Amino acid sequence: MSKIFVDACFGKETPYTPVWMMRQAGRYLPEYMKVRAEAGNFLNLCHDPKKACEVTLQPVDIVGVDAAILFSDILVIPDEMGMDLEFIKGEGPKFNDPIKDESELERLIGGDEAASKLTYVYETIKLIKEQLAEDKALIGFTGAPWTLATYMIEGQGTKTYNICKKMMYSNPELLHKILAKVTEVVKLYMEKQIEAGIDVVQIFDSWAAAIEPSKYDEFSWKYMVEIADYLKAKYPHIPIIMFPKGIPSFLDSVYGNFDVFGVDWSTPMTLAKEKLGDRYVLQGNMEPCRLYSKEATTTSVEEIQNIMGTSRHIFNLGHGILPDVPVENAKHFVSECQRVSRKS
Amino acid sequence: MSKIFVDACFGKETPYTPVWMMRQAGRYLPEYMKVRAEAGNFLNLCHDPKKACEVTLQPVDIVGVDAAILFSDILVIPDEMGMDLEFIKGEGPKFNDPIKDESELERLIGGDEAASKLTYVYETIKLIKEQLAEDKALIGFTGAPWTLATYMIEGQGTKTYNICKKMMYSNPELLHKILAKVTEVVKLYMEKQIEAGIDVVQIFDSWAAAIEPSKYDEFSWKYMVEIADYLKAKYPHIPIIMFPKGIPSFLDSVYGNFDVFGVDWSTPMTLAKEKLGDRYVLQGNMEPCRLYSKEATTTSVEEIQNIMGTSRHIFNLGHGILPDVPVENAKHFVSECQRVSRKS
Repeated sequence: MSKIFVDACFGKETPYTPVWMMRQAGRYLPEYMKVRAEAGNFLNLCHDPKKACEVTLQPVDIVGVDAAILFSDILVIPDEMGMDLEFIKGEGPKFNDPIKDESELERLIGGDEAASKLTYVYETIKLIKEQLAEDKALIGFTGAPWTLATYMIEGQGTKTYNICKKMMYSNPELLHKILAKVTEVVKLYMEKQIEAGIDVVQIFDSWAAAIEPSKYDEFSWKYMVEIADYLKAKYPHIPIIMFPKGIPSFLDSVYGNFDVFGVDWSTPMTLAKEKLGDRYVLQGNMEPCRLYSKEATTTSVEEIQNIMGTSRHIFNLGHGILPDVPVENAKHFVSECQRVSRKS
Repeated sequence: MSKIFVDACFGKETPYTPVWMMRQAGRYLPEYMKVRAEAGNFLNLCHDPKKACEVTLQPVDIVGVDAAILFSDILVIPDEMGMDLEFIKGEGPKFNDPIKDESELERLIGGDEAASKLTYVYETIKLIKEQLAEDKALIGFTGAPWTLATYMIEGQGTKTYNICKKMMYSNPELLHKILAKVTEVVKLYMEKQIEAGIDVVQIFDSWAAAIEPSKYDEFSWKYMVEIADYLKAKYPHIPIIMFPKGIPSFLDSVYGNFDVFGVDWSTPMTLAKEKLGDRYVLQGNMEPCRLYSKEATTTSVEEIQNIMGTSRHIFNLGHGILPDVPVENAKHFVSECQRVSRKS
């Protein structure tokens, strides 16, 4: 059975434009909060295939999206490379042992040994595939090496990225060694996700905008392209979505062997279409805060539809849904996307 | 005596391209830290004309910049409108009574009454002008109404701006009333700064990038233009610098009656020159983290110089200098800017 979402990723004709939402398995859903409470904490939920499967499937059933996205966190990768990860309530993720020098990097587990430790992720994927409707796609994902490295170096979220950037300008060799080691694990991790059954890959570069434009290729994009090339050589039938958040000023230079470009809300869809629409299917990009108002949601969905037409597009938010959005507004978004784009 | 900085703002020929740094009177300077410690806290320092004057002048003497910028904070405006401002150590500014509805807005002091309460700022300006070398310019400043409003509505710094944006999409009328009231105070505040002696106005829209591109004009830019129009009608000899941070995707639409456009580091200088260089003198835009390395600083200064040539440009960082930058690297930046651009 063909999946409309996968077809859309490859630019094939579909009966309507499919839609999913970043963070669709998240805190705005009471059903998610219930399972999370049972798990005790966020990391436990990532480690528990049965519960992670359950929250992955919830938005498909409740909100009506066309694809499920694996419930997990990008930081399970450095966690299994041997770093000491904690999620502190109200503060977010924290590594108690950020990488400061080469010897600390060398102590980390790399390559297949690290990727093989993420068994709970592959287990989760298998469980999801048993239960997900055949016409729905399952998206697997990873953080881009740069985004992962920022946490590994800073130890936590940061406003200024000053520790990473001091390394970028004063000791770029060490930063490249960190990025290369992470890239190696990510390649194998995504390969194992594909082998476990995901239908689509998304690479999130959430902190793309932290790098000045002239340095983006060197410190992030080239590693993302290396991962895409590796996967495409082995699995050309698996679409790859690249999502570097917040880089509207140099869309001319983000080329590579992938299928879909994720457009964040700071990038006008007209600009993305002009620069990238011929090469890639575009995904996005409603400003997530519009979900606070059904009227503002409909206006935006119609505007995006007018720009993109009925092909080479996947509807999504331009960033993650926020926890205080009413569920009925999320449903409204999904049904409006399907309504305005339906061909007959 | 003509001031090279003011001449440069108007696009006149100057012997070299002048330079200043955002946050140049700040924590990276031990001399600043000493005065701040004497003041007790940050807000006391803003309220003390003698001390504020002293830290304003420090970077001119120590680092060699071509313009001083008034030491103050954008949040003194809502503070004097009657909001309860606190600076909490390690957390940043906080209003204990964020605006939730129209009655709370109406209770705030507006117009000339609020602007007249900022006497310590005008006093500081007069003191600075007595002591600043005649060939150096003094920049006065304000936050843009949108940036001020985000703090007044959220109560503090925010990652998501979800409270403001809920208002933007669900109750835009209230948001416009807040913005209009703040705009009225800012106009008169900047007029009084000019009457007290500043040579140049800069309007900081630090949170410009929090608004989706299609809404930026409506909720921020038009209020900034209203302020610029008001000041230009009365004081055409005072240059105005607009600094909306992080809007590279719609530089085509930020026109108005001002002189200099401040380019942040996420916007390539080539793009800014292409879109705005004919209309405005451009200021910027070295990535501030390059200050961690003298070599990375020189490379960037030379690149910017190659793009901008020796006219219609003011050197600056693309955002504020960070507290852990060595003073000697800041001096190196300033002297490199002056070196590479000197005409004879």
